[in-house]
Parts: sequence; structure tokens; C-alpha cells
Amino acid sequence: MIVVMNLDAGENEIKAVIDKLDEHGYCGHLIRGVARLVVAAVGSELGGVPPGLEVLPGVEKVVRIMQPFKLVSREVRPEDTVVRAGPLRLGDGFFSVMAGPCAVESREQLNEAAWAVRRAGAVGLRGGAFKPRTSPYAFQGLEKLGLEYLAQAGKETGLAVITEVVDPSNVEMVAAVADVLQVGARNMQNFPLLREVGKLRRPVLLKRGLSATVEEWLMAAEYILSEGNEQVILCERGIRTFETYTRNTLDISAVALAKRLSHLPVVVDPSHAAGQWRLVSPLSLAALAAGADGLLIEVHPDPARALCDGPQSLTPLHFTELMEELTALAAALGKQFVRGERVQ
Amino acid sequence: MIVVMNLDAGENEIKAVIDKLDEHGYCGHLIRGVARLVVAAVGSELGGVPPGLEVLPGVEKVVRIMQPFKLVSREVRPEDTVVRAGPLRLGDGFFSVMAGPCAVESREQLNEAAWAVRRAGAVGLRGGAFKPRTSPYAFQGLEKLGLEYLAQAGKETGLAVITEVVDPSNVEMVAAVADVLQVGARNMQNFPLLREVGKLRRPVLLKRGLSATVEEWLMAAEYILSEGNEQVILCERGIRTFETYTRNTLDISAVALAKRLSHLPVVVDPSHAAGQWRLVSPLSLAALAAGADGLLIEVHPDPARALCDGPQSLTPLHFTELMEELTALAAALGKQFVRGERVQ
Amino acid sequence: MIVVMNLDAGENEIKAVIDKLDEHGYCGHLIRGVARLVVAAVGSELGGVPPGLEVLPGVEKVVRIMQPFKLVSREVRPEDTVVRAGPLRLGDGFFSVMAGPCAVESREQLNEAAWAVRRAGAVGLRGGAFKPRTSPYAFQGLEKLGLEYLAQAGKETGLAVITEVVDPSNVEMVAAVADVLQVGARNMQNFPLLREVGKLRRPVLLKRGLSATVEEWLMAAEYILSEGNEQVILCERGIRTFETYTRNTLDISAVALAKRLSHLPVVVDPSHAAGQWRLVSPLSLAALAAGADGLLIEVHPDPARALCDGPQSLTPLHFTELMEELTALAAALGKQFVRGERVQ
Amino acid sequence: MIVVMNLDAGENEIKAVIDKLDEHGYCGHLIRGVARLVVAAVGSELGGVPPGLEVLPGVEKVVRIMQPFKLVSREVRPEDTVVRAGPLRLGDGFFSVMAGPCAVESREQLNEAAWAVRRAGAVGLRGGAFKPRTSPYAFQGLEKLGLEYLAQAGKETGLAVITEVVDPSNVEMVAAVADVLQVGARNMQNFPLLREVGKLRRPVLLKRGLSATVEEWLMAAEYILSEGNEQVILCERGIRTFETYTRNTLDISAVALAKRLSHLPVVVDPSHAAGQWRLVSPLSLAALAAGADGLLIEVHPDPARALCDGPQSLTPLHFTELMEELTALAAALGKQFVRGERVQ
Repeated sequence: MIVVMNLDAGENEIKAVIDKLDEHGYCGHLIRGVARLVVAAVGSELGGVPPGLEVLPGVEKVVRIMQPFKLVSREVRPEDTVVRAGPLRLGDGFFSVMAGPCAVESREQLNEAAWAVRRAGAVGLRGGAFKPRTSPYAFQGLEKLGLEYLAQAGKETGLAVITEVVDPSNVEMVAAVADVLQVGARNMQNFPLLREVGKLRRPVLLKRGLSATVEEWLMAAEYILSEGNEQVILCERGIRTFETYTRNTLDISAVALAKRLSHLPVVVDPSHAAGQWRLVSPLSLAALAAGADGLLIEVHPDPARALCDGPQSLTPLHFTELMEELTALAAALGKQFVRGERVQ
Repeated sequence: MIVVMNLDAGENEIKAVIDKLDEHGYCGHLIRGVARLVVAAVGSELGGVPPGLEVLPGVEKVVRIMQPFKLVSREVRPEDTVVRAGPLRLGDGFFSVMAGPCAVESREQLNEAAWAVRRAGAVGLRGGAFKPRTSPYAFQGLEKLGLEYLAQAGKETGLAVITEVVDPSNVEMVAAVADVLQVGARNMQNFPLLREVGKLRRPVLLKRGLSATVEEWLMAAEYILSEGNEQVILCERGIRTFETYTRNTLDISAVALAKRLSHLPVVVDPSHAAGQWRLVSPLSLAALAAGADGLLIEVHPDPARALCDGPQSLTPLHFTELMEELTALAAALGKQFVRGERVQ
Repeated sequence: MIVVMNLDAGENEIKAVIDKLDEHGYCGHLIRGVARLVVAAVGSELGGVPPGLEVLPGVEKVVRIMQPFKLVSREVRPEDTVVRAGPLRLGDGFFSVMAGPCAVESREQLNEAAWAVRRAGAVGLRGGAFKPRTSPYAFQGLEKLGLEYLAQAGKETGLAVITEVVDPSNVEMVAAVADVLQVGARNMQNFPLLREVGKLRRPVLLKRGLSATVEEWLMAAEYILSEGNEQVILCERGIRTFETYTRNTLDISAVALAKRLSHLPVVVDPSHAAGQWRLVSPLSLAALAAGADGLLIEVHPDPARALCDGPQSLTPLHFTELMEELTALAAALGKQFVRGERVQ
Repeated sequence: MIVVMNLDAGENEIKAVIDKLDEHGYCGHLIRGVARLVVAAVGSELGGVPPGLEVLPGVEKVVRIMQPFKLVSREVRPEDTVVRAGPLRLGDGFFSVMAGPCAVESREQLNEAAWAVRRAGAVGLRGGAFKPRTSPYAFQGLEKLGLEYLAQAGKETGLAVITEVVDPSNVEMVAAVADVLQVGARNMQNFPLLREVGKLRRPVLLKRGLSATVEEWLMAAEYILSEGNEQVILCERGIRTFETYTRNTLDISAVALAKRLSHLPVVVDPSHAAGQWRLVSPLSLAALAAGADGLLIEVHPDPARALCDGPQSLTPLHFTELMEELTALAAALGKQFVRGERVQ
């Protein structure tokens, strides 16, 4: 940590800075520059910037040198974490696809979707029972009934079930069904929820918030790891920018970056990023090429009848074509594509 | 709602669109243009875009004409809603200031802050007992103890107490103390929390999310109103942009815009927007001039000792100066500035 | 400047860093931390980061301490620069309003607008002869003829003429007419144009680019000052964000910030920021309250007939009302409002 | 185009809207809805929204249905445009790589880079002679001398020369040397420059502006095509967002989107997007997978000595490795990778 001070800061002001650093376990080294004084604070930076440091007299700004995350960092754990759930395997060269409808709408719809994605080679089944919707008047999910259908579909198809939890008080109920619990983009900084899923010993898929920096995303994962749950999957799903042709802007660099900074597996949700099914295939291929460990794709047996996100859902046919393209690409890239058994 | 279709859409495709509109209570009028077909859907639009409409064959895009919010809209209720809590009064020409520390740190710190802001003319006391923090290793608030201190400080000073609730299961506990419950920016789309505070009959201050559009912000308020709680205060606190000199970018236009679109009172939090105490005064004056109904300002008796957000906190002295400037400005603008009694 | 190095950087690597710093006039001080090595580079930083420093082996990142601008900085020149042009006076407590149509459309339209804004108290006449338009098929301005009309209207009304220059080769021609040359938002980093207007000894109004940081905006001004022209007016006109209700997002904090960082006068263009005439008045008042030295407002005698930007243009009547409100506000703020003589 | 009017608009107001539409070649159809009146304007929309329409009394908003671009649109020309320059071939399945240093620094540096990228399989040589730099104090390029070196290097290696032009008055001089003229991101809306390169009959590489929407980017290309030059290459190079870990955010969706909307070839500049050489390879692979027709990559023989953009430049060794990976990927995707002859 570097404390930048005005050139005319007096001895007392410098002392106050060094004392405060000292109180928080840092050792301060003063360097007199041409236009500023600089105090270099040597220490572990685990505790972050000492509160109040920035408002001490004479202090102009404080520049952090170290990243604030620890448990999720590749510096702490150099080798890839591999997350497993049923047939699903993510990280360290393993690439898996999770697919299914935005929302669980009925037993039939879910079953049809589940078998379709399994046939195409997916190993995870996604589907929302609790749907966070912008409008209070929109379909909010089947809730408990949706969980039941998911449990059954997962059991019958052998697919790992991925579903969202939106309320800390529901974590237990969702965990009774889900192989992977999803924390949605809007809840990336719902800290009570992060703490709750951190107490589980089950994989958590953590979506990046619409306007979260990569650092904030990793810090949200740090919440979960700091509670003892190391099975976290990072999911990039597009960020909010000025561009309006697409629903969000897929931050493909964040995939490569998160892989460098962290040992956790990184997957991409191209459906929410694009908001248009026609862009899902090119974005899926790009994600694999950029180093993603998996994909989370919306597939609906009949998008025109979907109760939510129809425009971004693939049909089973398009999904099957995409899976073939991914298979060829994974081979060229030397990735191990975890495909479910091909049943008919 | 307008459905844009390709010029070569066949009769069956057009019929499918009109049928789906019909199913959802709209009447579709076909207009053949030079380069596109357009189906104008006449109806109340309360139910939104029929699911699946956008993926019907031949449909290029669907353009919404009406705003999706209803209860918060000035079209539904033309006159200003006035929110009252103790001496606080917001809306319809009344302008009030709420102030206090970012976090409740101790009984002494809170009392000192409370008396200081009351002396300067504030009518509300803000202070966090539950602190949503980016890092799991940062101070997370005094929680229950913090609420106790707030209750007492509110009682002694007569100020309305404003404090944040972050977990749906804590709403009751917080409501036992708070005159106004705050829903923070990170929780603007925490729908279980919105529903819970919607069940109260007590004012809720709803902060705009870091990357929420004005429409999403109003839709979040709609959640609260749709549960029966009409006492909602909208709070603009800066949005996330590419600019890094300031913590966030105060969207001053959103203040004027929200006042036009909605009957709810709109306040501004200049402290979080700026992230630097030196900008708090100009932003506060700008907010009042732009039409805000109130302000939420961080004031700490000793910012260099603050456990959070010291750099953006005003000292009591600076806050007192600002209150004088606001008083002069409010008079020039014809606003009724609700000042607490000046005690010594 | 701070060079952060990996803890395992060897002596040769450290030496290479210190040598490169030395070559560029810096003196490097090594500090060994717990998790990183830090080399603090002491020197003037005028020359910026030495090219190639960041890619030397062992270097993790380079953190700049000083701002890169010099001539525009308040550190170099603490007192406000006052820019004058005819009756116009900006800075050091003087507040002036420039107004007029987006584009010069005809002699009659311009004259009508010029007299209307003069009557209301404006001291500058704005109007575009060269219009940078997003579409090649839209009206591109009257060009030379427009300049003639501006020259005459300026002469007759006594208003200072502000008009845009878009091509370095036209600077001389525009300067023959304009009292203030405007560099538009899209040209903020058109460096040949900046150099050309830097050679003049006439005020230049420099609009902030749609996605320019405050630092880049000041660096663009630095280009002009570095050529010897010190008469630069900074103009905030809204930045591009995710919000779509408004054309741009007025960055009101940037006004207060630019006033702190620089001695140059800062004005606001609320018309382009809002894109809707209804928001122009609240944004104008907010700009004055936040510390702006002036305003640049679109006024059209008949917005429904405007060839460009009609929706954001005020009528003379609304403009006159706004000028009265500004007058009252300026008085309350202790600003000296430079009003033209009120003629009938 | 759809004109939305208030329900209480009178007959005269409706007539005024229909008359104005009529004046501009549209036919207006009135539809009376439950909450709004809608006038559907049938016509070619080539002339855009009639000026002043949005401010007619009773008009609430105007919604454009058609895209504003024409010549660049795939609707006008369904098949891919192929751009050729020397060995370079882009579009319709052909994939080419252009590479070289950010700036031409000396004859030796450029020659070394040119032979290195040719050896690795590139078919285009990029290098800046005129450098638009944020700071007036930074290296601004060798200018005329740089062009000479480029001409010679191009001649000797047989590579197509790509170089930037920043001033309309230099277009002729640059065109005497360049096989492809580059218009940089900061000049994407420098309309005099666009018109000037539009008069050439030589390929123009048009970079997307930092905050330009896809639509504005295509409209900038429309300027060039509207002057008669159909050889335009679109180049995505990252947009500005809130994320600061990367220099810009590569908008990978824009690649797929631009390919759908336009017949023009689309290339990606991963170096400027990332700002860090370590991310260049994953982004290059992702671009190819997403459907890009080529890449523009910064390669420097000795990045630690580069006068600009060293941190984002690949070494010849890394570039060679990347070219091998691209070759394997292109084969898997069925793309025709245009590789220069492999010389030793």
C-alpha cells in the first residue's frame, strides 16, 4: 500500500500516518519525491486499508498494491480447482455444458427439455424454480413445485441439477434438490445469501453482477470460500454497457482474466449475455476458445411458448448443432469435453 | 406495443401474431409498410409483452410503447406523495435532510453524530447497523447492538431514524427501531426483501442500484407498492460509469426525471455518489436545484476514526456550513426547508 | 511513480528497472515488502511512464502517482482563469449564458433566435454552421453561408459568437467569424484540430467527449495550452452510460471536480446532456449550484421546425423563464451573473 | 416509424403529425389505443425522422422501426463483401492476420517486425506513422519518415501495409503508401476524414469508437460507402466500460452482430482491447471462433524498448505460437486461413 502525501505535510502529519499504519500491522517507509511525499506501507495487506487513513491531514490518496482477495487467488493455490457434480466436471482441462429452460414451467416442459439436452450431450440441467423478475406482474416461478420437478428430472436423466436460490431462508430447501446452487447476477452482493451458501458443502455457481468488476466478483466468491465452501464456479453472463443491440455485453476478457487470477473454474452464460438466440452459438464457441471451463445455455423445447426469456432460448435442434461444433472446437484446443452418454 | 415483422411474413405468420396478442387481451392492427409489416397491439399493456411473441416466425422485434410501471406512475396519481416520519417531511415542496455516520460504531460515536446533525438542522438520523461490505474481512456492523443505539439516539434527539435492512428475515427486527427502512443499492433487485418491506406500513427509502436504469428503479418501487406500502422514497446515489475520479457518477438528470415520471419523493445521497467529502457540498446544492425533495448525507464526528467511508464523510462543521447554504438556496427556489429546531 | 515487482525478482531484474528509471530522469528507491517488491521512482513525472518499463521482467504493474496534466492544473496556477469574449465573462465568480439554435438554418431563423436570447439576458450566441451528424443523409449545416449569418447576427446584437470547427483546415475561416471556437465532443481527441486551435489567441470551448474521463478531457485542454493558447473553456455535456431515458448522463460531479483540478472555467451544456427540453431547466439550475461558470443552451424560435435537435431546444419563452430562475439562484449563491442589457 | 401520442391529443394535433409525415414522404395511419394514440408512418425511412416531429404538440415519442444504415446493410447486399489488398483477403470465409508494432520507431525496428510477422504467417503489416496520443508530451510518431519506412518494408516483404491517417489533409500522402488506410477509434466520427477516405478507391479499416454503438459504427462506415468507397473493413477493438482490469472491454458479441447486420468484413484488434499481452492469445482465438474475418495484432521485436503500447505487444515468439493455434482453430471451424508463405 502506498500513501501519497502533499509535499508540504509536516512531521506531525507524517508521524500520524506512520502510526496509523503501525497500529494496523504495517511498517511505513517515507520517500521524499519532487512533487509529493510517499509512504510505502509494508505488510500483508490482508486487513485492507486502515479505516480513516485517507482522511488524515496531508494525505492525498492511498494506492493499494495487492489484490484484496486471498482464498480465491491463484497466488494462494496455483493449481486449478475442479468442481464435480454427478457427471459434471469443470476445470483443469474439463469442459462441461449445462442447459435447460429459463424457468421450470411444468413437469412435461422440464422433462422434454431435460431429455433433449441430455441427448445432445449436456451433463447439467438448469432451470429456475424461483425467478427474480424486474416486474412484480411477471411470472415468478413455480417455486416449491418447480423444485420437485427438477429433482425428478435430475433423477431420471442422471443430469446434475443447477437451480437458483434467491433468499437466504430458502437455501436449505433448494440444497435438498440442487446439485449446484446458483446465485444470480442480481444477488452477487447479497452477502447474507453468500454466507448461507458458504456454509454448504455443495457447488455454488456464482454469476457476475451486471455492473460488478472482476475484483468484486472474486470478492463475492471470497465470501463463500471464507465460510468454508471451496466448490465455487464463476459464471460470466454479460455486463451492462451503453450498447443496446444486445441485452448485455459478454465480457470475454473477464473469462481469460478470471482464469489467470483465480484457481476456480469459470463458465459462461451466453444466453443472458446476448439476449438473442442467434448470437448464442458464436458466443459459446468464443467462450470455449477464450478458455472457459463450461457453458450454461438456455434451451426450451418450444421457445415461442416459454414463459420467460424465449427470445434467447435455443431449440433442441439448434442446441444439438452447437454441441457438435463445440466438440470439434474442444478437440482442436486440446480440451476434454465431458459429454453425457448419447442416448436415443 | 408494436410488433415489427418481415415484409415476407405469410398470412399464417401474421395470424399467429394476432392470435397470441388476442390471447393476452390485445387487439392487433396490421399495417403494411414499404420495408416491414407492423402489427400495432392495442390494449392495456399491464401484462407486458406476451411470452414467446418475439420468437414467433416472421417477427423481427417487439417495441413497447407504454412504461411498465403503474402504481408508482404520475399518470396514475398526478399529485406528489408526501412521506412523513417524525419531523421528516419529503415531497410536495417539502425538503428535509437526513444525516449521520455510515456505520453505527459505538453509543458515543452515534450520540455525538446525532446531536451534531440535529444542531445543524437535520431531521433524520442515518446510520448502518448491518453493513453490506465488498470484502468479507471488513467491518460488518454492530448488528443488533447498533439497532439499540439507534433507537435510543432517535428517542433522545427526536430525529427520525433511517437504517438499512439487508435480509428479508430481519425486516421485523429492523422495523421495530427504524422510522424509515433503507433498501441499499446492492439490494434494489432483492425481490424477497422488496416484498417483505412492502408488507410494512412504514416508509422505505429505496436506493437506485449501481447499474439500474430509472425504469428498473421505478419497477423495484412498484414491487413495494404492489404489496400495499405506498410510503416509498426514491434515492439516487450515483451510478457506475467509466469515470474513476469519483466513486460513482451522480445521475442528476435522474432526479428531475423520476420526479416527472413518478409521484414519489426523490432524495439524493451525495456522499456515496462522490466518494469524497469535498464534492458533497456542490452535489448537495445541485440536487436541491434539480428538484430533489431531500438529502441523505454522511456525517461523522471524526472521519479519520470512521470504521467505514471516512473519506466521504463530512465533519459536523462542514455539515453545518452546508446546511446554511442549502437554506439560502431553498429560499431562492421557493422550497420549504424542513429544519429541526436549532438547539445548543 | 511506483513500480510493483514480484517478490522473487532477482537482482538483475531490479537493476534493469532502476536503470531504466535513471535513463528517464527518475531516482528509484527499493522497498522490500511481505508479498511484493516496490520501487518508488522519485522525479518530476513530466515525461510520464518510461516506455517499456511495464514489460521489464519481474515488473507486475506501474502505478502513477502524479496527474499527467500540467498547464491546466490548479497546482501550477492556483487562481481562476477568466475567459472574456465581447460581453461574455467566465470564471472567478462570473457566470454567463450562451444560447442559440443547434444549427444555423437561415438568416431569419438565426436573427430571431439571436434577438430572443439577447432579450432574455444571454451574452453569447451559439449556432452551428458545420454540423457533425451521425448519418451522412442528415442536414450537415449551411457551412460558409452559416458563418456569414453568424457574423452579421453577432455584429447586430453585440453577442459573442460561439461556433464549432470540425476540420483543422477550416480553423482560420471559422476564426475569422467566431469569438469563441467550439471543439465538439466527437473531436475532443482530434489532436490535429486541438493543435490548430492551440495556435490561435482566441477562446476555445472544449466539449468533453462522450466517453472521456475527466483526466482525458483535461489532457485535451493541455494540448491547446501547450501550443500557447490559454483561453480554454471546459464544457461538460453529458457522458454515455447505460441509461437510455436521457440522451446522455450529465456528469455534474465532473463540474465540481474540474473546478478543483484546473484553473480553467467550466460550463455546462444541459441540452445535449438531457436530449429533452423539459430537463434543461432543472439541469441548468443544478449546474449553477454545482459551481459551473456558465451555460450553453439550445434555443430555437420554433423547435418544431428545427432541422436538428428540436426535442432538446427551449422556446424563447421557456428560456426567458429559466433566465429569471438562474438570476435568483446566482444571487443566493453569491455568483456574479453577467447579463446582457435587457432590450425590447 | 411509430409516433406515440397522448390519448387526449386533439384532431388538429393529429393532423399536424400526419401532415408533417406526408411532407417527408410518409403515409400516417392512426390507431387509437387504450392509453395512447399511435400513428404508424409507412415509408422508406431513408430520410430518417422528420425534423421537428418529436416536438409537435401531443407527441410523446417517436420510435424508429428501421435501421438507419443502407449501403452497409446485409438487407441491401446479402453476400459477404471480400476486401483484398496484396496477399490480404478478408470476408466470405477468408481469414487473414495483420500484425506489427504500435508505432514505426526506426527502419531497423520496423524491418525486424515485418520479417518476424511474415515468417509467422501474417499477410499484413501494421505500424503507425502518425500516433494520436492522449498526452501532448508523448511520442507522436515519425510521421513522413515513418511512411517511407513502411513503404519500403511493405515492398521488401510483400506484406500489405496498414497505417493510420488522422487528418483529412494527409489522406493523399498516406494513401500513396498504404494498402489499407486505418481510421482510428478516436476518429470514428471525424466526418471530414470519413468523407475524404470515402473518395479513395482503396480499403479502409474503420475502428469502432470507444463508446460507439454498433449502429453508430455502421453509420460511420455508411459515410465512407456513401462517397463511393465500398472497401471498408470494420474493426472491433474494445469499448469503454466500468471494468478497469483491462484497458477496454472487447465486445465479442459485436463481431457476430456486425456480421449479421452488414456484408462488410469484421476484424478484431485484441491488443488494444486487452491492453495486456497475456490476454491477446485467448482473445484472438475467441474472435476467430465468434466469426471474425481477421485480426490486427501488435507485435514488437522488443516490447521493453517499444515507444508505445509495449505492455500489449506480443514478442515474435509468442506471436508465432498464436499463429499455430489460430491455424488449428481455423481448420476446426472450416475457415480459410490466408497465410503468407513461410520463409526462413
